[in-house]
Parts: sequence; C-alpha cells; structure tokens
Amino acid sequence: MPQLSDVVAEIAAEMAARPDRGQVATYIPELGRVDPNQFAIAVALADGSVVEGGDCETFFSIQSVSKVFTLTLALGLAGDRLWNRVGREPSGSRFNSIVQLEQERGIPRNPFINAGAIAVTDMILSGHQPREALGEILRFLQFLSNDDSVFIDKAVAASEERTGYNNRALANFMKGFGVVDNPVEFVLGVYFHHCAIAMTARQLARSGSFLAHQGRNPATGHSVVTAERARRINAVMLTCGHYDGSGEFAYRVGLPGKSGVGGAILAIVPGKASVAVWAPGLDAAGNSHLGRIALERLTARMGWSIFGGSAAETS
Amino acid sequence: MPQLSDVVAEIAAEMAARPDRGQVATYIPELGRVDPNQFAIAVALADGSVVEGGDCETFFSIQSVSKVFTLTLALGLAGDRLWNRVGREPSGSRFNSIVQLEQERGIPRNPFINAGAIAVTDMILSGHQPREALGEILRFLQFLSNDDSVFIDKAVAASEERTGYNNRALANFMKGFGVVDNPVEFVLGVYFHHCAIAMTARQLARSGSFLAHQGRNPATGHSVVTAERARRINAVMLTCGHYDGSGEFAYRVGLPGKSGVGGAILAIVPGKASVAVWAPGLDAAGNSHLGRIALERLTARMGWSIFGGSAAETS
Amino acid sequence: MPQLSDVVAEIAAEMAARPDRGQVATYIPELGRVDPNQFAIAVALADGSVVEGGDCETFFSIQSVSKVFTLTLALGLAGDRLWNRVGREPSGSRFNSIVQLEQERGIPRNPFINAGAIAVTDMILSGHQPREALGEILRFLQFLSNDDSVFIDKAVAASEERTGYNNRALANFMKGFGVVDNPVEFVLGVYFHHCAIAMTARQLARSGSFLAHQGRNPATGHSVVTAERARRINAVMLTCGHYDGSGEFAYRVGLPGKSGVGGAILAIVPGKASVAVWAPGLDAAGNSHLGRIALERLTARMGWSIFGGSAAETS
Amino acid sequence: MPQLSDVVAEIAAEMAARPDRGQVATYIPELGRVDPNQFAIAVALADGSVVEGGDCETFFSIQSVSKVFTLTLALGLAGDRLWNRVGREPSGSRFNSIVQLEQERGIPRNPFINAGAIAVTDMILSGHQPREALGEILRFLQFLSNDDSVFIDKAVAASEERTGYNNRALANFMKGFGVVDNPVEFVLGVYFHHCAIAMTARQLARSGSFLAHQGRNPATGHSVVTAERARRINAVMLTCGHYDGSGEFAYRVGLPGKSGVGGAILAIVPGKASVAVWAPGLDAAGNSHLGRIALERLTARMGWSIFGGSAAETS
Repeated sequence: MPQLSDVVAEIAAEMAARPDRGQVATYIPELGRVDPNQFAIAVALADGSVVEGGDCETFFSIQSVSKVFTLTLALGLAGDRLWNRVGREPSGSRFNSIVQLEQERGIPRNPFINAGAIAVTDMILSGHQPREALGEILRFLQFLSNDDSVFIDKAVAASEERTGYNNRALANFMKGFGVVDNPVEFVLGVYFHHCAIAMTARQLARSGSFLAHQGRNPATGHSVVTAERARRINAVMLTCGHYDGSGEFAYRVGLPGKSGVGGAILAIVPGKASVAVWAPGLDAAGNSHLGRIALERLTARMGWSIFGGSAAETS
Repeated sequence: MPQLSDVVAEIAAEMAARPDRGQVATYIPELGRVDPNQFAIAVALADGSVVEGGDCETFFSIQSVSKVFTLTLALGLAGDRLWNRVGREPSGSRFNSIVQLEQERGIPRNPFINAGAIAVTDMILSGHQPREALGEILRFLQFLSNDDSVFIDKAVAASEERTGYNNRALANFMKGFGVVDNPVEFVLGVYFHHCAIAMTARQLARSGSFLAHQGRNPATGHSVVTAERARRINAVMLTCGHYDGSGEFAYRVGLPGKSGVGGAILAIVPGKASVAVWAPGLDAAGNSHLGRIALERLTARMGWSIFGGSAAETS
Repeated sequence: MPQLSDVVAEIAAEMAARPDRGQVATYIPELGRVDPNQFAIAVALADGSVVEGGDCETFFSIQSVSKVFTLTLALGLAGDRLWNRVGREPSGSRFNSIVQLEQERGIPRNPFINAGAIAVTDMILSGHQPREALGEILRFLQFLSNDDSVFIDKAVAASEERTGYNNRALANFMKGFGVVDNPVEFVLGVYFHHCAIAMTARQLARSGSFLAHQGRNPATGHSVVTAERARRINAVMLTCGHYDGSGEFAYRVGLPGKSGVGGAILAIVPGKASVAVWAPGLDAAGNSHLGRIALERLTARMGWSIFGGSAAETS
Repeated sequence: MPQLSDVVAEIAAEMAARPDRGQVATYIPELGRVDPNQFAIAVALADGSVVEGGDCETFFSIQSVSKVFTLTLALGLAGDRLWNRVGREPSGSRFNSIVQLEQERGIPRNPFINAGAIAVTDMILSGHQPREALGEILRFLQFLSNDDSVFIDKAVAASEERTGYNNRALANFMKGFGVVDNPVEFVLGVYFHHCAIAMTARQLARSGSFLAHQGRNPATGHSVVTAERARRINAVMLTCGHYDGSGEFAYRVGLPGKSGVGGAILAIVPGKASVAVWAPGLDAAGNSHLGRIALERLTARMGWSIFGGSAAETS
C-alpha cells in the first residue's frame, strides 16, 4: 500500500500539469472569472490530520456541495419527516427534474437535485426570517470545519438571484403543490446564498469528516449525527450526488460524493477519510473534470473504493 | 461484534415467524403457486464456508438476479464495448423504461432493467444458436456455484414466453434502433430461459462470491473477473439493482444487491461475504418483502454497510 | 331547416331545466361563488343582429376565452413573428404543459395553453407598463363588442395573483429560456387581469363576430384582421381551443371554439355566426358542461358543423 | 371565383415545374425507388365528376391514408365501442407515441397514429384469418373507388414486414395491456398489407367522396356511413390526420386531411369535393412537400377552407 502523502502529492502534481482542464461555468459571471489552472486536494483523516496538495488555501464557491450540509441540518430539525417531502431515489433522467416534479406531484426525487435542495431549504427556513436561517447554515459549516473564516460570497449569490429563473420555476411549481411552505422569494434567497458559501479544500474536507466517522468529527470530537444517519446520508450521496452522472461516479470512483458547479467535489471514504477536491473546469455533465480524475486516481491507488479493495490492498 | 452464525439463526427464526409475508408474483402461474411461508438465507464467506438458515435446500427461480451473471459473462465476451449499447445510470423513473428507451434512442439506461438485460443477452447470443448461448449461461452458473444441479425450469420459461408482451415490445423497439443484432425471438428465448434458472440459496450465495473477493471465488480458487471489474459490477448493482427502489435499498441495507421477482436477492459485502436471501412474497415495489428486511437486520447487526460500520464495529 | 330563434329558445329552456349542471371552479373563490343555475346563449349573425336566450345580461369572467383576443391583438402588433415564440400544434398530453416546455426549450405548443397565452401577453406588453398594456386589451374588447361596459373584475384578478404558482412557474421557466422578455411579475399581472375580464354573452358573441366574417365585424363594419388571419385563428381554435379536449369538441360540436374556466365558450360558425354560451358548471375536463351540450344541440339542429351539413340542410 | 379546372391545371403545371421536390421515404426500398418528379391531383365533385391534373393514371402506395378507410370499416363493424380502445385527441408530442401509450395504459390517442391504426386493424380482424380481413379491406376500397384495379403491392408489404420493428413494439405493448385481441403477427400482417394498397389519385379522390357528401358517394349513389359519422371522421382527420403537423395543416390548408409516407394526401371539402394529391417527396415532418403546397393553393384559390371563405368568395 502506497503512502497517502505520496499519492496526494503525485495527484496534485499531475493535475497541475495536465492541459485538459474542462470549462468553467459561465452562467454566473463570478464563477466564469475563476482561473481554471487551479487545483486543490485535501484528505481529512481519522486522527484529525489533513493531507493536502495544491491550492488548499484558496477559497472557492462550494455551490451544490452545500446541499450535503443543508440536508444534514434539516434532518436534525425535521427528523425523518423530511422524507415525506423529498424522495431518495436517483432522478435518472437527462431531462430536467421539472418533468419528474409534475409526474410525482411536486415531490422532488432526492435532496440533491435543485428542486429537492430547495424543498430542504424551505424546511430549514421553517417560518424564520431568511437572515436567521442563513446564519444558522453558515454557523453550521463554521462549526463543522472548525474554522470561522468560512463565508458567504454575496456577489455570487446576487448573480444567481438575477438569473435563477429555472430555480424560481421549480420553487413556484412545488409551492403550487403545497410542498414549499415559506414565501418563494424567501426560500430562494436562502438557497442562492448557501450555494454561494466559500471555503478552502481543507475546510471542506474537515466539514465532511463526520460522514466518514459514524457521525462524529474526529478533529473536534463533536458528535454531529448518529452513525446510522451518517451511513444513510452517504447512501444518498452515492446514488444521487452527481445528478444523472451518479452511476458513472460510482462506477469509476466508488465513493459517496457530491459535486458542485464551482468545481468542488466532496467524497467520503467510510471509516477512513473525507476528501475534498477542487478544480474549476467542468466536464460535459457539469462535474469537475480534474476533480473526478483525481478521485479516481486516489481510490485506485489507495484501494479505497467501497465496492472492494484492490489486489494490492489484500496482498 | 455478534457471531454471524447466531445472527443468521435469529434472522431465519424471525422471518419464519413473521405474519407479514408480502404477495407472491402471480403474472407467471408457476411463481404464483410457490408457498409464501418459505424463507432462506445463505452467507458465503471468504474461507469458502457458507452459513445458512431456513430453507436452503429449496430451489427457487432466480429471475432477474440472473442479470448479474449475464452481465459478467457478456463483459467477458465483449469487454467494455458492452457499454456502447447499455448505460450504467439508474433509470430513476416510475414510468416503465420504454419511455427512456425512446428518449435515448434505444440505449437502455443500465444492464439491470429489462431492456438492458435483453441487450446484454443479445451480446451473449452474438450469432450463436439460442441453445448454445443458453448452455453457456447455465454452465457459467454451475461453474460459479460449483454445483451441477443448477437447472433451468422450463415450465417457468414457457410461461414467460406466453405472456412476455412487454419484453417483446422492448426488444423490437431496440431492434428498430439497431441496438439488438440477433432475431428478437432468439434473444427473448434465451432471456426468458436464463430468468428461469433455478437455484438454492446456498448455490446463489456461492455464485456471487467472486464479487465480494476481488473477482476470485474463494471456495474454488477460480478467478472469474479482475478486481476492478468486480468492483464495477458491484457499483452498478448498488445504483441500479432494485429498479426504481435502488435508492431505498442503498439507504436501508447499504450493500450492492440485485433482486428478482421470484423473491431472491443477492447482496455483496465487499471483502467479507456474498449473501443470498429468498422469501417469495414481494413488497409493493416488486422486491422480496422479507428478503429486504432480513438484509437490513444482517447489515445492522454485523456492521456490514459499505457506507460506514456501526458503533459496535469500531469499539 | 328550423328557425334559429326557435332553436335558441329551446336550447335555453332545456339548459335552464337540466339537473346536471357540472361543478363550478373553486380554486378562485370569486368563481366558486357563482350560481350554477345560470345559463346564457347569444348568437351574433351576419346582419349584425344577436339572437339570445337565457341570462344574456349577466356579466361573467371570460377567463381563457380572453386568449383568442390577446392572440388577435398580438398578431396585429408582432405579425407572424409571433409564431417564432409560440407554436400552433395541439398540446395533446394529459400532463401539464411544463413537460412539453422543457422538451421544446421554452416554446409553448400553442397560444391557448397557459404557457402560450403568457408568452402572447409578454408580446403585447413589449416594454410598456402593465397598466398601459392592460388598458389596450380592455379597449380592444370594448371596441370588438362595441360596448364600453366590458370591465376587469379586480377581485378575480387579485385572487389569481395570490394563488397562481403554476403560472408563475411556467413564466419563470420560459424566462429562463429567453422566451419571455418582460419582468415575470409584469407579464403575470397583465395575464391575470385579462383573464378577469367580465362580459355578457351578448358582448362576447359580438366580440367574436369578426372571426366568422372574414375579419370584419358586420355589426360595426370595422375591419379587425384580414380574412386569411381570421381563418387561421379559427384553425388554431379548432385544434387547440379546449386543451386536451380539443379533439372531443371538434368531434362532438364541429366548430372552432375556446373555453374558459368561468364557464364561457366562444364558438365560430364561419360565414354565419359567432356564438357565446355560458354555464358556470364544468365537466371533468374543465370545460363548461352545459355549454358544450348547448353547442352540440345548436350545430346538430342548424347543420352548422364545419365538417359537413346535416341531411336536413341539403334536402 | 375562378374555374376549378383552370385552378387544377395551374397547380399541376406549377408543381411539375418546381425544383423543390422533398425527399422520398427510403426506409422502405420500394418507396425509395419512386421517381420524385411525379405529381397528381384529382378533385371528385358532388356531381360524380373528377377534375384531374398531372399523373392521375399512376398507382402509388397510399400508406397511412388507408387508415381513414380502416377506421370507417371498423366503425361499421364495432360501432362506437371502437372508442373504448382508441381515443380521438391529437397526440401532440414530438416524441413517438409509445411514451403516450405507456402513460395511458395502452390506449392510443387516436386512430391515425400507428398504434391507433394497429388497434383499429385488430378490431377488423376480430377473430378472422388475416387473409379474410385483408380481402374485406381491399374490397371496401374497390367499392368506394368503384374500381376493381385497386390492389395490394406485396413487395411493399413484404418490405414493411421485414423492417417494422417499431410497429411490432407498439403492437406487443398494446397486447400487454390487453388492447390488442388477435395474435400480434396476424394484426401486423393485415396492417402492413393495407398500408401497401396501391391506387391512382383519381381512385383515391373517389374513395373519399362519401366523407364530403354526408356519407354518400355521389358517383355511385352508395350510402357508406351516416351523415353524422362522416362529419365525425372529418373532425378526427382535421385534428389528428397529420401526426404532430396536424395544427400546421389546419392552419395552412384548412381542410380535414390524411397524409401517407408514400406522398399521398386525401383532403375533404365538406359539401363540395374530395381531393387526392400525390407527390412522392416528403417534407421534414414526413408529409408530402408539394402535396401540402398544392392543397394550400387549391383552398386559397377556391375559397374552400372550412374556417371561412376568401373575400373573393363572398363578393
């Protein structure tokens, strides 16, 4: 078995050097201006240490990776009642989820597609003011990462608010079915802002650590969720974490993971590690191009796939 | 950590006693006549031993569980070219897959929905006579289970041939897109017969053992596939193995698994075990009612979820 | 051939007496309070006269019938460029049109489904203030009916604004595809208000008269559109005027028609008459129950189907 | 009003000269070999005469135009019970009808899409041998056209049988829902053969004549259906006769019509004429390119649109 630090260093070096960097998302001007030549990887381990490579001090927009944390928060607030309003099956369609929303009367298929994440945000809002709900989400991420420098990038949020017609359509559609309780603009305001949370790879890896260790963050000793809930969130990440590329990610990487359009991916190695990678350029499916390749390298070299170790591991 | 033999015995006892037994499938008369009071569980371990409970000598129709083995066989014949004709994403729709087939021009979403399994069967057939292809599939299962008593139940196959209009529609539809090469009736003949393969729980657990152990069957020492291919088949089982209930199975059981309408489920515990359960009564989603519950018990008690061990396991 | 006045009187008497009155729409409280025992029929003829029966002095909410007039107005403003943003094919799906909108990238199938009518309203708005656009629509209907008492029922409009989440979803969805130019709330404000226009059956029959007479209103002598445009609007009414019940209306009544959820139907007998019927109770498909039956009686008795006269007519 | 004979001659001359001829269908080799430079138009009038232009002696494959006649025949056999198995709404989707079949549990939307025509053929078959049913359909067309030279082109039928996988999928799919009674291969055999009926434009115009004249063929004096049924078949032709181009045909031509992939269109002018046009090249929507243009010319010049006469007509 190779040394993790060597593997991480090799991956960081390879990813820094590759010419194929994908395309940065341009629908949000702020994301479009990010330099595609950046790459970061951070692996948070059971002993609380973090093995890093690349631009691990750089803040990036976590975008949809935030949905893992809003789901965790909402489960804490609403418990399993949450599943009355959001399913946990892969969406499995190339077509956008509004088709599915119509067929299933406003119930989103899972908490990681946009409609589902909006419904989850509505549960966190739950009658409070948007400012309060957003503060709670931000504090939760500062708590998980044990780092108060995590912040909300208001320019990114404002940009999404100006252009988010499709999300506005989804939210109104669910509201028409009674699946969204709070005023649509309140819910979307919180949603656009939590997608605009900015973190470093190190902070993100630490924030996911409780999912790798039975609900407890080994760096801080804080218990976040029960072991069963951690397993179940991992299961939803594996089946639904990459939209209609979830099967492909499971097939190639073999870890629960959640990607964001800012180029971040959080992946969980149960019992071993929480891994954050960041590379701003995306592949055709909208997931980080080099991020996915980096994770493929990592699981292959370390024998970390949840679907079975490598020959190397056992010998 | 509890003893596996105790856990299996307890599960078998509980499942034998439960009054809720689900509904046996009735669209095939032969399946409709099976006694719903039966239950079997067999756990094949790394040392080649099998821990059993319940009716482990009884033969049952493996139905769609056969698709794991035809996929394995077809990958051996066609290699990764197979993925040009079949996807590996969850189907994710309550609506039957013919809608998806139309939208994606005849390419089935994955090898475990009916359309995908028919396309896989077409690749195995590959210009041979149906009799030859079917013989190859049967011999493959006898080889994997190391037991020549595995057989094809011709009455079940004949029953499916008389009523399989939906599968006939799927096969013709794919043929129209050029995704099926061989004559439709040849392909369906092989398909209906391999779904009618009859095995015991012990045989089925042994047959899946190579998937738990990096492609090698520990009982026989035979290498079946590479470690990477075994992992990848497990990944497809996890994301696609229970039709539109795959997310639910991952969430509750936390193992790669494949169910059949005859009431069998094969589940893989990577590095540890291959598990076959059989209980003929189905739940509303068409998966074995008690089979799923038995697997939930097993992973919870043994800490076998691939998404993270129980507190018990680590302490 | 029977006398029209006799036929109208008989129909009015029958409809007043029938016990089956359908169900009034309740999703808008103002519509839910309308007395279902009312019925009106008005037939505007080529000589400018109107043959009436029933409650022809009562004002009702024309709802979606307004879409015939906004289409006419928008064609006058935008010409055939309108058809770049709206199709003219039947929607033909039981499922709500947002599915279709997604598949066809924001282009509504026709101007009479909600999405299409919203896109048409956007073209009328065309950079103006909502108040101006709405004034223009109202004046157009006063001009067509030659009656200044036509008005907008603001309580109905306000009610729709409070509950119109599905229309808000459609408008935002189209906005995301660039099919709506003006601010969504402006467009919906005008849309909800023009659906809330209140008229009598006599006024409505007169307003449709130009469609029966090659674009010219025989009562006033005003030329509204060209003969070709009148024919084409009639064609769209026939194929698309009753949502997914358009085929049924053509089959039973045999006239171009447009229904509204307030219980009104406008039907055109080319070369002969413009007919307004109103009965507040709806059938399962959301069209006026007695209105449809009344029109069926009228075309059968008068031999007015555009698909061929009755034996009576020719003999 | 211009003379019909002049108009027909002008249209025939223009269509013979135009360079844009569309593309002949190539999926059936026999159709692909047809010379695209041919054009025919025949107008059967109330006095039994036929005004002709172009290649009116040439036999062509009527293909889907046959569905008007099988519908008429099946209504005669089954009466309005037919509508329990087939709807009468436009299909209205760019996507092939198998999606709709699934959503509506095997009931085709209308008798003119392939699925609906197959269900209609099943009703004609109704327990008889394919040969008998086919003989009845052929005799019906010889009777309607008053011409025994109408025949079935067996090479075309054989070609369709070899390649008709999509129709085979539809038929099996409906069989699975119990909407098809007879053996699938019997039904398809009759279906493929009636689509392969060969006629001249003159024969086709005469065959449709009963639809223009209240169910009675004026040339022969034979009463074929009631006036009401003729109107209703016309209504279904108008709303459903050109697949997903039915709205467009109504908008441009303004007549009930039915097209076939062989390049024929039958159009009905209620009370006046039955028109057959034939030009083998198709437009992007699969309808005869010059056939549609010829009909547009004819209705515009003659003021024959059912949606209102031209200014010329009334003055």
